[in-house]
Amino acid sequence: MPNHSNLDPSGSLVERFLIEPIATGPLYGLDFTVKDNIDIAGRKTSYGNPTWRDHHHAPKYNALCVDQLLAAGGRCVGKVVADEFTYSLDGESQFFGTPRNAKAPNRIPGGSSSGSVASVANGVSDFSIGTDSGGSIRVPASLCGVWGMRPSLHRISEAGVMPFMPSVSTVGAVASSYEQLNSVIRVLLRSGGGLAVPLQRILVLSDAMEIADKSVRAAAEVALNDISSRTGVDLQTISFAQIAGDGASLSDCNENALRVLQSLEFQNTVGNWIENNTPEISNTFSMAYENVRQFNRYEAMNCLDRCERFFDAIQALMTCGTVICFPTTPVIAPLKNTLNSMEAVMDFYGRTMNITAFSGVGRLPEISAPLLTVEDCPVGLSFAAGHYQDEFLLSAVKKMLGW
Amino acid sequence: MPNHSNLDPSGSLVERFLIEPIATGPLYGLDFTVKDNIDIAGRKTSYGNPTWRDHHHAPKYNALCVDQLLAAGGRCVGKVVADEFTYSLDGESQFFGTPRNAKAPNRIPGGSSSGSVASVANGVSDFSIGTDSGGSIRVPASLCGVWGMRPSLHRISEAGVMPFMPSVSTVGAVASSYEQLNSVIRVLLRSGGGLAVPLQRILVLSDAMEIADKSVRAAAEVALNDISSRTGVDLQTISFAQIAGDGASLSDCNENALRVLQSLEFQNTVGNWIENNTPEISNTFSMAYENVRQFNRYEAMNCLDRCERFFDAIQALMTCGTVICFPTTPVIAPLKNTLNSMEAVMDFYGRTMNITAFSGVGRLPEISAPLLTVEDCPVGLSFAAGHYQDEFLLSAVKKMLGW
Repeated sequence: MPNHSNLDPSGSLVERFLIEPIATGPLYGLDFTVKDNIDIAGRKTSYGNPTWRDHHHAPKYNALCVDQLLAAGGRCVGKVVADEFTYSLDGESQFFGTPRNAKAPNRIPGGSSSGSVASVANGVSDFSIGTDSGGSIRVPASLCGVWGMRPSLHRISEAGVMPFMPSVSTVGAVASSYEQLNSVIRVLLRSGGGLAVPLQRILVLSDAMEIADKSVRAAAEVALNDISSRTGVDLQTISFAQIAGDGASLSDCNENALRVLQSLEFQNTVGNWIENNTPEISNTFSMAYENVRQFNRYEAMNCLDRCERFFDAIQALMTCGTVICFPTTPVIAPLKNTLNSMEAVMDFYGRTMNITAFSGVGRLPEISAPLLTVEDCPVGLSFAAGHYQDEFLLSAVKKMLGW
Repeated sequence: MPNHSNLDPSGSLVERFLIEPIATGPLYGLDFTVKDNIDIAGRKTSYGNPTWRDHHHAPKYNALCVDQLLAAGGRCVGKVVADEFTYSLDGESQFFGTPRNAKAPNRIPGGSSSGSVASVANGVSDFSIGTDSGGSIRVPASLCGVWGMRPSLHRISEAGVMPFMPSVSTVGAVASSYEQLNSVIRVLLRSGGGLAVPLQRILVLSDAMEIADKSVRAAAEVALNDISSRTGVDLQTISFAQIAGDGASLSDCNENALRVLQSLEFQNTVGNWIENNTPEISNTFSMAYENVRQFNRYEAMNCLDRCERFFDAIQALMTCGTVICFPTTPVIAPLKNTLNSMEAVMDFYGRTMNITAFSGVGRLPEISAPLLTVEDCPVGLSFAAGHYQDEFLLSAVKKMLGW
């Protein structure tokens, strides 16, 4: 169990406290933290923005996912930093600071579940719960070298979680080991063993490999070849155009489909609140929000059909027994204070979200495993399975790693 | 197109206005209304409670589902009554009145999408959008004799829809004809044609037939036998115990699973707000809420596992090509002012929700078709298909009715 000092060199904690478990169970003996867009009874939820925190009462109830963890034996040790309105992938919060990337301290941790990942990577907690819409669990897990999972869309209850992008957002978790991630996710999924389907097919998403830096791609290839040898299952390379037809690319999947849907939904949730409450917002968020605000809802409407068409195509591909693999992020964590030019931002966000959009559009469960090292920095290797095949994915990853 | 007078003998409208379509499309020429828990830009959303309305700003954006309808050619003609916090199945609102049950004016319309259904049944609009968690579209559609559909959980965007029970609530629609319902739902699902799977199997859920009044059951049997003759597909009777094993019943599915999950989630959404804002609430809602408030979250936690186990069992049953049928409600609409004893309330809610819980736990799409008449009053016959098989269900129902 991690050691709790009063200081927090991890920079991950917004508030430190102890909520003891309600019962023993599979998580007994494990400490967890909660991203600050998930309710803890009696404490205000900031959603990464001080005005939001000040304008809302403290909830009476814990989010349902928090109660599930307490009832399974987990102990809650604090609330951790979220990027502002969880609308970022970098983890540099003007209001709550930048949590420490334990394995690469001069680099950003990634976001928006920056505090969740940093609390685990720095030993403040064993695991943490967060949320993921455009990569908010997967990206910081990749950049900080911990395990992270975004389950199938809406498999975990969102009761008590701040509204964000209802057609895309999920609750998920990060942990310091596969075993802990597996235990936590199974509690949250509240499932039995799930189907005992054998691993039949390993696909490699070629577009994502090409988007990645050469060094990341090379590291991923080595790891994937190991997995193939270990399991005796051949790797089959497949492109997004082969999956979705019509010359479609991952960039269509991101820029012309998922990102538009996300922006439309963000207008409804946080956008309505901002327009009516004119909160103090950071410069970074202000620029991002200006883009959201300028989306013309009617011009953007046909992106919804595109999302659904891509979903159907991915659904047809991801039959049970199939896992698809790709680097979680195309890069190692950028150095701090380098995402300050439009080109740098566009490069990091554009390439990263072209990869993360695949599971977003597909509503897929995806696990980022801390298997790669490039320039002494961690990068995740991702494994995704079909929609609602979360239990199969958990078992398949274990098998692929020979455990 | 319905005739719009200044008066509203339907009692369905909260506010009358016109929002012209943005484009022509499959819904061009059709008028629709919007349940008052779904945002309309520039107008306050009441959620069926005046204090909620007064404590919240008017949204800047329409809910995404409203914009989808406008972009497909629909014209919005007003906001319609919702039961208080949509937490009721009777449609008698202390604050906004009881919309008229057009085919049985001395009887309740059912709720919580009471205004949606009444606006269609009384010719105020061609169709309406509402929400359904425990039957809030299906029940009033059944009791008022219109078409209604609850799609698969989360198939339609909930951006701009008031938070209710995140693991159960869906956006859906009611319409005066199958053709209109089909057009509206396909716009909202934003799907292509969907899979062209033939109808292979018609199941009849025996527990639901037994829960229904004898007269309702008899009418359902006649209609189902007609469907079997027309399609040449035999009816296969199946009980919930055969589906879920362990002697499970629909009452377990409702009382020991779905209803508990609903109560836990309602504590997080509306409950937190009520505890912090002490709104004026009606006597009826006050009694219902007191039950919710008394749920012990930790004692109730194992209901989540039961929900998931039932979901898995239903999922295994509802292979593609399968439709399961049952009366939407066990009764015709109760007479007004008769749900005023605890026994009467328990009988109506208990039996009704034992039936509606099936698709709730199964996350299934369900269509209530106005096919039955008992004592000169309408009752719906329901058809459900597997999770995410919405397009198949729409096609299968058309075929079953010989259209």
